[in-house]
Amino acid sequence: MASGEDDLIARYFRPIATHSGARGLIDDAAVLAASSDDLVVTTDAVVAGVHFLPDDPPATIARKALRVNLSDLAAKGAAPAGFVMTLALTAADPDFLRPFAQALGEDAQTFACPLLGGDTVRTPGPLSISITAFGRVPMGRMVGRSGAKAGDRIFVSGTIGDAALGLALLQGRLAAEQGDSNSALVARYRVPQPRVALTLAVRDHASAAMDVSDGLVGDLAKLCRASGVSASILAGRVPLSAAAGALGFADELQIRLAGGDDYEILCTVPPARVEGFCAAAAAASITVTEIGEIVAGESEPDMRDAEGQRISFATGSFAHF
Amino acid sequence: MASGEDDLIARYFRPIATHSGARGLIDDAAVLAASSDDLVVTTDAVVAGVHFLPDDPPATIARKALRVNLSDLAAKGAAPAGFVMTLALTAADPDFLRPFAQALGEDAQTFACPLLGGDTVRTPGPLSISITAFGRVPMGRMVGRSGAKAGDRIFVSGTIGDAALGLALLQGRLAAEQGDSNSALVARYRVPQPRVALTLAVRDHASAAMDVSDGLVGDLAKLCRASGVSASILAGRVPLSAAAGALGFADELQIRLAGGDDYEILCTVPPARVEGFCAAAAAASITVTEIGEIVAGESEPDMRDAEGQRISFATGSFAHF
Repeated sequence: MASGEDDLIARYFRPIATHSGARGLIDDAAVLAASSDDLVVTTDAVVAGVHFLPDDPPATIARKALRVNLSDLAAKGAAPAGFVMTLALTAADPDFLRPFAQALGEDAQTFACPLLGGDTVRTPGPLSISITAFGRVPMGRMVGRSGAKAGDRIFVSGTIGDAALGLALLQGRLAAEQGDSNSALVARYRVPQPRVALTLAVRDHASAAMDVSDGLVGDLAKLCRASGVSASILAGRVPLSAAAGALGFADELQIRLAGGDDYEILCTVPPARVEGFCAAAAAASITVTEIGEIVAGESEPDMRDAEGQRISFATGSFAHF
Repeated sequence: MASGEDDLIARYFRPIATHSGARGLIDDAAVLAASSDDLVVTTDAVVAGVHFLPDDPPATIARKALRVNLSDLAAKGAAPAGFVMTLALTAADPDFLRPFAQALGEDAQTFACPLLGGDTVRTPGPLSISITAFGRVPMGRMVGRSGAKAGDRIFVSGTIGDAALGLALLQGRLAAEQGDSNSALVARYRVPQPRVALTLAVRDHASAAMDVSDGLVGDLAKLCRASGVSASILAGRVPLSAAAGALGFADELQIRLAGGDDYEILCTVPPARVEGFCAAAAAASITVTEIGEIVAGESEPDMRDAEGQRISFATGSFAHF
């Protein structure tokens, strides 16, 4: 009398839930063993047609669903400890579930973040995946959004705007002729690269941090509001990828800086910590770039072009409502 | 440049997220402080049209979304520690959000399970709420499904079948003339009563436990499979509520015993622990009823009527797929 739901879990997810805390997925609950660390909890859902395209490959959907959460943990300075997942499916389709579960299992291994449990429900649609991920930090050491102080330097990891450009290409809002760069940008949209390797650099040196998910302009504004400060940014310093540059997208500032889906880390570092932060990032082989400075005040962050003119954005970030 | 999503969180959810671990919901992450307890994690989603009716009141939807998770924690012997929520909304409707958030905040207080964080996303529909709840148990003491042994007594809390009868009434599959009892059954469907008060009795005395969410017959079969045992149950012992009895629904066994949504606790108790378990349940003012016994073997649990005839069920439990 095993239900279809149990069969589905047994067939696709039990094989990838090998961590002892998952208890073989036979229970309704998982265990995170007692430890002297604080547990950081983050939740991010991805919905077909909102966070990914309905015809994206199942493997990239799985990777994105997990990685957007891993990106949050890294930005809090928390080392991954595991995750639970609610999968709302329109049907129990093996052609979706097999590659989805396989990719999810691979990423769980790659990032040492085991699947611990979850819930599978049927929905008339759209497909959606809600993941709650857990990370560990030494007691009291989670890096929040509210610690930025005037004079702190503002850093981002990697390059900014690729995913938003990739989405614009997929949706035909931008056109590009060079197939390779095109693919690189689309890949950045479909499969974020969470900066897990930067976790300790953030934890040990940043005064505030978050990941860039809704667009750099809006996310920086959120960090500044949480810290009660403002910021001064030079748009020309915001790192541009080779792919975006090759396609001539350097000036697509509205898309690049306010488009979102970057899953890079935005953090503020006190001047005395800059050297240590950069050394730790280099040791982790992650490029970080100083793009500006935290300033006193509560005005919106100020972003300037090469001529010193203030740039204004139609919308600072992606918003659901 | 604050987004509508931020406004929505600030307006409706920040006022009920008063626990320090929620960090005022300004961060993308919550903190569960280090402790010497194991952390039990459970995830359950509710979807409009599947787990609740689209025209159910917002307050009862909120309570059900949280309570189905509290029920899981109680069945694991874990004391509530907090929860995170993914809310997939079709619109930012104040007439929904205000009573929803208020009821959620009331239940969070009632059950000492604070809102710690979450994610709010837009969906074309249906409305769905995925909650991941946390509980604490002393190290190694989570009660699983796999510890039942032949000879253990099988108990359930409360009464079984009310919610499924209530749903059948709402859907017109059953008819009842007495309005009061009708309301009592519908209320059991809309607002489960999680047996949080039974947490310590379960933790200290049960060999295996789970909550009855998909129907007693199917859920007992799951527990037996996880433990590698079978069970012998007398249907007449399964407790019937006064409301269900008054409406003449005692013989609706297919609905009552396989319908689900009970959110009562099903547990097995070794003979030497029965007295202690019953005393602890009485001290917690929760009625528990012995309905049968675990037996050796791997056959499906055996359920008999008053004449000793085996009862078979068309479907043992609710299944999504």
